[in-house]
Amino acid sequence: MINPTPEHQSEHHTALNPIALTMGEPAGIGGEITLKAWLRRNDCKQCFFAIDDPDRLERLANKFSLTVPIHHIKKPQDALSCFATGLPVIPISTAINETLGKPNPSLASAVITSIEKAVSFVIAGEASALTTNPIQKETLYQAGFKHPGHTEFLADLAKIATPPVMMLACNMLRVVPVTVHQSLKSAVQALNQKEIIEKSQITYKALQKDFGIPYPRLAIAGLNPHAGENGALGDEEMSTITPAIKELQGHGLNVYGPVPPDALFSERARENYDAAICMYHDQALIPIKTLDFDGAVNITLGLPFIRTSPDHGTALDIAESGKASPDSLIAALNMATFMAVNRYQEQPLSSCVQNGRSSA
Amino acid sequence: MINPTPEHQSEHHTALNPIALTMGEPAGIGGEITLKAWLRRNDCKQCFFAIDDPDRLERLANKFSLTVPIHHIKKPQDALSCFATGLPVIPISTAINETLGKPNPSLASAVITSIEKAVSFVIAGEASALTTNPIQKETLYQAGFKHPGHTEFLADLAKIATPPVMMLACNMLRVVPVTVHQSLKSAVQALNQKEIIEKSQITYKALQKDFGIPYPRLAIAGLNPHAGENGALGDEEMSTITPAIKELQGHGLNVYGPVPPDALFSERARENYDAAICMYHDQALIPIKTLDFDGAVNITLGLPFIRTSPDHGTALDIAESGKASPDSLIAALNMATFMAVNRYQEQPLSSCVQNGRSSA
Repeated sequence: MINPTPEHQSEHHTALNPIALTMGEPAGIGGEITLKAWLRRNDCKQCFFAIDDPDRLERLANKFSLTVPIHHIKKPQDALSCFATGLPVIPISTAINETLGKPNPSLASAVITSIEKAVSFVIAGEASALTTNPIQKETLYQAGFKHPGHTEFLADLAKIATPPVMMLACNMLRVVPVTVHQSLKSAVQALNQKEIIEKSQITYKALQKDFGIPYPRLAIAGLNPHAGENGALGDEEMSTITPAIKELQGHGLNVYGPVPPDALFSERARENYDAAICMYHDQALIPIKTLDFDGAVNITLGLPFIRTSPDHGTALDIAESGKASPDSLIAALNMATFMAVNRYQEQPLSSCVQNGRSSA
Repeated sequence: MINPTPEHQSEHHTALNPIALTMGEPAGIGGEITLKAWLRRNDCKQCFFAIDDPDRLERLANKFSLTVPIHHIKKPQDALSCFATGLPVIPISTAINETLGKPNPSLASAVITSIEKAVSFVIAGEASALTTNPIQKETLYQAGFKHPGHTEFLADLAKIATPPVMMLACNMLRVVPVTVHQSLKSAVQALNQKEIIEKSQITYKALQKDFGIPYPRLAIAGLNPHAGENGALGDEEMSTITPAIKELQGHGLNVYGPVPPDALFSERARENYDAAICMYHDQALIPIKTLDFDGAVNITLGLPFIRTSPDHGTALDIAESGKASPDSLIAALNMATFMAVNRYQEQPLSSCVQNGRSSA
């Protein structure tokens, strides 16, 4: 039983690949929470590796008195064997001399390289999922970055035609806003049947593929108070949302609504669906952040790979303090693991984590 | 110690008057939940009396097998002495022969009479607060009712010039929507500085007078995602909300914002304010109904008297079934008691309730 048998090899093959974690904005809290997530590896369901400058991470660990051995690794698979004893890092070629709290456009290309490398690993199947540390968009724009944001850049790298879909998820609720980062006025104007249908379909498939739900149930929110009360309080339910629901039902999807928005998020109501399709940003984000402000994870659906991110920004204002919490990053890593287990039907290497059980 | 001393009399004078409870739509669940609230009088902090047809209530009690003795009383004060042994009812002159589930416009005048009598009792100070059972607006319209709704009718009876303010409150949160029953599109258009200021001021005074908060703290929500991000996601924060906040601060009110709407309702955020002023219906109602779907109470601020109501409608569809829950009505009665105790600095007659302690 000491020599590997074919069965052992097959067992080895069913082990989930590690998660690729990008550097994000180096002047922000990304490095610090990456180190702290490794210190709390016992709370992580799967090992991960950073794509970063190992020297900078060592410097940060010293600065914040975090005992984190850094392992330089060459390929994602190497992380499986060394994660228990240190943070695996695939080096980017640039040396990062960041000033915490003060983003520097000259480091933008390294930020982008970290994302590009991570995407190449997940597309090649060497990493099971992508978790991204937050970036500072304005700094990237100053360096000539052409994409509106992180997600659009990933969509471009993945060469997909349909825009990806933002989901927020916690243990109690999954929400998908159909319109996202625009004023409430323009969101009301922009709302259309096509996008409700597209985003519902992408959500539906993701629930099947990545969340282990063979027959997903989608609740579609109304836009107006009381879902418009048959037109007395707004007509978008009749003109746009109900026709979208009928078309989705025609495609065989288990979809219902429009539900009066204020009745959609009670404990009882949440039992009836696997995800709520919401008409605007705050209709989705108010309930989930009311229920679980720190545990909500940002998920991008509709990419050819799994991508999650913590639900906070670069937090430049506290980057020097060493007080950043890795909670949201750990939640994002664990959500990525959960989704990857469902997608690939492989087991996470919790053993590699257990071997490195911390005393904390 | 058996003969009443002046001290005893003075104690008697500091007893809070009973709460006036209107009939509401007789075809709805109002009568049933009134009877059930009395059966759960042990959960009620103060005694109340119904303004209804006593024969109809007896009929309903029989129909639903509820053991509720009915006391015909002549004036509100009589309720104090008899509440422990039965439901006190001040009769309206009309005999109500309702058909449960089917509102009848010929009974509309009795519905209105019940409200008018109740208002006369609270204005005269004979009742300490008004709690209203739900009405069926369409049925009243058919009978020639000229007011858009319950609250506007009360404002008219109270002869106030400034429109009253709707607050929803539960143990965890108080919210006040500035715009209320209109489409989201028209709410965005209608939002204006004057109304934000007026409703904040009315809320502020009510928190002092009726909620026992000497120095209230108000959080003012933004309208747009991320509170507009300095105009990138909408300009109403800059054009309307921030100027309103500055004016309120200029008047010495402890007010802050505009707060990103999705960050306003977490447990941590809720510690920073006593009420959240919200820009539209669902911005207020989604968080409170997410937190406490059944316990939220509707409160009307800015009337010369205290008015609360359960946060549900007439529930015509279940009026025949006997399955209606009095939870929300009891919450409304107790909220009215809490507010009246603060306003009048008098003690509720919990003794009259305790004497009638039910076995349930």
